Amino acid sequence: MAVRQGYELSALTVHYGQAHSREVDSARAVASALGIQHRVVNVSFFRDLAWYSALTHPEEFRLPQDRAPAADIPITYVPLRNTFFLTLAAAFLESEALSRIERGGVRELSATIFVAANAIDYSGYPDCRPEFYRAAVETLRLGSKLGTQYGIPFEVQTPLIDKSKAGIVRLAVEAGAPLEHTWSCYEGGERPCGRCDSCQLRAKGFAEAGVPDPALT
Amino acid sequence: MAVRQGYELSALTVHYGQAHSREVDSARAVASALGIQHRVVNVSFFRDLAWYSALTHPEEFRLPQDRAPAADIPITYVPLRNTFFLTLAAAFLESEALSRIERGGVRELSATIFVAANAIDYSGYPDCRPEFYRAAVETLRLGSKLGTQYGIPFEVQTPLIDKSKAGIVRLAVEAGAPLEHTWSCYEGGERPCGRCDSCQLRAKGFAEAGVPDPALT
Repeated sequence: MAVRQGYELSALTVHYGQAHSREVDSARAVASALGIQHRVVNVSFFRDLAWYSALTHPEEFRLPQDRAPAADIPITYVPLRNTFFLTLAAAFLESEALSRIERGGVRELSATIFVAANAIDYSGYPDCRPEFYRAAVETLRLGSKLGTQYGIPFEVQTPLIDKSKAGIVRLAVEAGAPLEHTWSCYEGGERPCGRCDSCQLRAKGFAEAGVPDPALT
Repeated sequence: MAVRQGYELSALTVHYGQAHSREVDSARAVASALGIQHRVVNVSFFRDLAWYSALTHPEEFRLPQDRAPAADIPITYVPLRNTFFLTLAAAFLESEALSRIERGGVRELSATIFVAANAIDYSGYPDCRPEFYRAAVETLRLGSKLGTQYGIPFEVQTPLIDKSKAGIVRLAVEAGAPLEHTWSCYEGGERPCGRCDSCQLRAKGFAEAGVPDPALT
């Protein structure tokens, strides 16, 4: 969607010491299929800070199976993960923007971060909700030279946040997104496990959209 | 000050790929002198993201010398550095807190981060101001399980934020802080350079407080 809107894009993948790197490989394949710059940063130290999570310490916590969504925030929540991701993206974006302003004399630019967070058919993560992103852009504005000296706010676009998984599948098909390279499973196997929260939500989305999942074929 | 208030403390030092590691050594010495746990995380990858700064890329940018404070935010500003630091501290703090709540049955706890930011006699950094920290705690609350499921907000204490450098020196002397182990200089030499913004502000503070700087003796 961002490519279609004509943005000059740079993709950032954060490898944060989660159980497996399967989703990093998938991100690389997606960026390559779209022909956009892609940067992977390895922040495995984050696993030691945000240690209370089944995604950063799978040996200590069991992944929930066949869990009813909508209960408490599950153990797959990674402490402050999206705040962390957003800050990394913003630091890179601000560096690029300041360089263009102070060295290139550019005066008009937007500083936009696209995040594919989703607050429908999800696992109840607090950092996937619109109110979190509204607060975060204000923090980024107040904590940055870009926001305070140049008056250029950060914008966070979350085009999928209010879409059902079926709606996301339909949007992806319309946009010609490389769905075959995407990965949702919490496990890092050759193929999706089909049982974790994330696999179940994905399967439900494809089923409701009436589209076969190209990652399963 | 935090030790005196009776907090159970854990110190976090972030080595973020700045020009030198002299201040990391100093932080280690300070924590050791106070007898508190200390954790150093190496996040040198951050240098590549927050690249537009004389602190992360000294070979590209000259450090300002004898600069009049109060001008524009200087090139020593590191994009989103304090947002990044605060997020790391909060992720660790939230992990510890969730563990005590969910495994230890603890119901009452506070989640407090002490930051020595200062917005007087400083270099004009946006992420040293009270309004930044006010926005940040709201983002942390909304983006966390601790804040949203358990209703425990993050608190950020910035006891030095409205103090002059002379006031900070006086507070430190009263509290018996190990000033001899502290480091302010932007350069990484054996001894402070005496010329950078940070050295000048420090010298002014000690002079106004009428106290000799024990790090210079």
